[in-house]
Amino acid sequence: MTSRSTAAHAPAGSVPDADLTRLSLNTATTKAWTLEEAVDGAVRAGLPAVGLWRDRVAEAGLERAARLVRDAGLRVSSLCRGGFLTAADDDGRRASLEDNRAAVVEAATLGTRELIMVVGGLPAATGPNAPARPGGDKDIVEARRRVADRIGELVPFAQEHDVRLVLEPLHPIFAADRAVLSTLAQCLDLAEPFAPETVGVVVDTYHVWWDPDLRRQIARAGRTGRLASYQVCDWIQPIAADPLLSRGYMGDGFIDFPTVTRWVAESGYTGDVEVEIFNQDIWDTDGDDVLAVVAERYGRLVQPYL
Amino acid sequence: MTSRSTAAHAPAGSVPDADLTRLSLNTATTKAWTLEEAVDGAVRAGLPAVGLWRDRVAEAGLERAARLVRDAGLRVSSLCRGGFLTAADDDGRRASLEDNRAAVVEAATLGTRELIMVVGGLPAATGPNAPARPGGDKDIVEARRRVADRIGELVPFAQEHDVRLVLEPLHPIFAADRAVLSTLAQCLDLAEPFAPETVGVVVDTYHVWWDPDLRRQIARAGRTGRLASYQVCDWIQPIAADPLLSRGYMGDGFIDFPTVTRWVAESGYTGDVEVEIFNQDIWDTDGDDVLAVVAERYGRLVQPYL
Repeated sequence: MTSRSTAAHAPAGSVPDADLTRLSLNTATTKAWTLEEAVDGAVRAGLPAVGLWRDRVAEAGLERAARLVRDAGLRVSSLCRGGFLTAADDDGRRASLEDNRAAVVEAATLGTRELIMVVGGLPAATGPNAPARPGGDKDIVEARRRVADRIGELVPFAQEHDVRLVLEPLHPIFAADRAVLSTLAQCLDLAEPFAPETVGVVVDTYHVWWDPDLRRQIARAGRTGRLASYQVCDWIQPIAADPLLSRGYMGDGFIDFPTVTRWVAESGYTGDVEVEIFNQDIWDTDGDDVLAVVAERYGRLVQPYL
Repeated sequence: MTSRSTAAHAPAGSVPDADLTRLSLNTATTKAWTLEEAVDGAVRAGLPAVGLWRDRVAEAGLERAARLVRDAGLRVSSLCRGGFLTAADDDGRRASLEDNRAAVVEAATLGTRELIMVVGGLPAATGPNAPARPGGDKDIVEARRRVADRIGELVPFAQEHDVRLVLEPLHPIFAADRAVLSTLAQCLDLAEPFAPETVGVVVDTYHVWWDPDLRRQIARAGRTGRLASYQVCDWIQPIAADPLLSRGYMGDGFIDFPTVTRWVAESGYTGDVEVEIFNQDIWDTDGDDVLAVVAERYGRLVQPYL
């Protein structure tokens, strides 16, 4: 108990032997912090990189956000997020392409090549009176086809701006409402027609830890040059009322981080490791304390296996 | 509104044109009913089959349960369930093999070949002080290997009793605590070394609807003679506090039943279709009313596509 509460309150820099040279703070982990506070917090904790969310960037202003991060000497490991490409109507399609082009420009301005894409779920369709025929709004096969088409439409623009569209498979718990891409294999299949510099994939342990094909698909992502980001956080239970927030510190749940991290290392990945935790308790905790725990867990469960 | 509330309170037999000749009531759907009540209810609703849970069978007594169902002229489409095979210690292994042999005998006695297997999750391992090294309790790769080994150990006994071990892929939301088998492909890979009459798979829409490889794997299950059961219920949201109970009537959620049902039909499946819904609201509803809704939804969203 003593050592744990010490770790939780000491600055991250005091964790013995912690090699933080690839640890990136995804700003969603310290949600209460403004971009400026997150940048300062990352620097205080000795982290070399941040993963940015667009809402925090927008609050700070794009140019100012880029300058803040650059002046602090931090890398931007990724921008979260583009996507939501499944709308079935023309207006929805146009709006999502426009929003994604803006995200591409933001990524380039912020100095990251990696734009994380959460592709969206089924168009809203529930209740006994909703259409349920094939071709109707519950047609996940067709929704996936639209995602592939729209990625194809975005590719030239992304290429021009030297930004990679990074497809994120989301846990199947989110297939209905957030992402019809559910496995790494599916994302790699979708990426195949495009250059690996322009369409990649991300491995987020929370979303893929259960996948029986995970080792093989991580290796495939590495071999094809598409592994663009490695994000870590744990799968905890009981599942929170809002499953989006049901993430925990590495070590608090069920994920075997050493094994998955070794697979990522074996694939040849040499990039940053982003810690991205959505969790109300963690959001209610002081950011410096959060970073101290993150650094300790990373140093124990992730970094040694990289 | 009028037509809906009428349907919900009329006896199932009054649903116009409903062909119920392949509809089976899984007794978990009408949890408040004893086995005898479920048998009577199924007969009243014009259903030809029931899927039985072992707890209801045990309450009634095995021989008496077998007689009740036989005397009512009902088929038993499956027995739920065997499994929970992931224990890492010798005592746990012995206990689970013993329990599964008992389940095999029960299935044979009840007159069904299909014993549904929910294989179990990770041995309990959570919290920062739990072992998290590879080879520790969070090692899902090893847990899956144990499942394969134990299925192998059970096969000769199942074969002797002319019972099929029916592997159930569970939604990845249950990978930690209920089933380390998460996809149909994975179950079919595991089944491959064994005769299709002895190791099969079940397609439960709730568990597999999100799977991008679903069509191909259903076809493979049919082609290899392993598709032993088709179970239907819907994926509803928001997810219930206990995700096990987060199931709904067909049509109330996000699943495209016509499409999945057509894939099952194309695979050559000619067996019963079990409706298996765990849902507190439905459990609190009068069983006859539940069966009326089930029959109406089945007649509209499933049967026409079989």
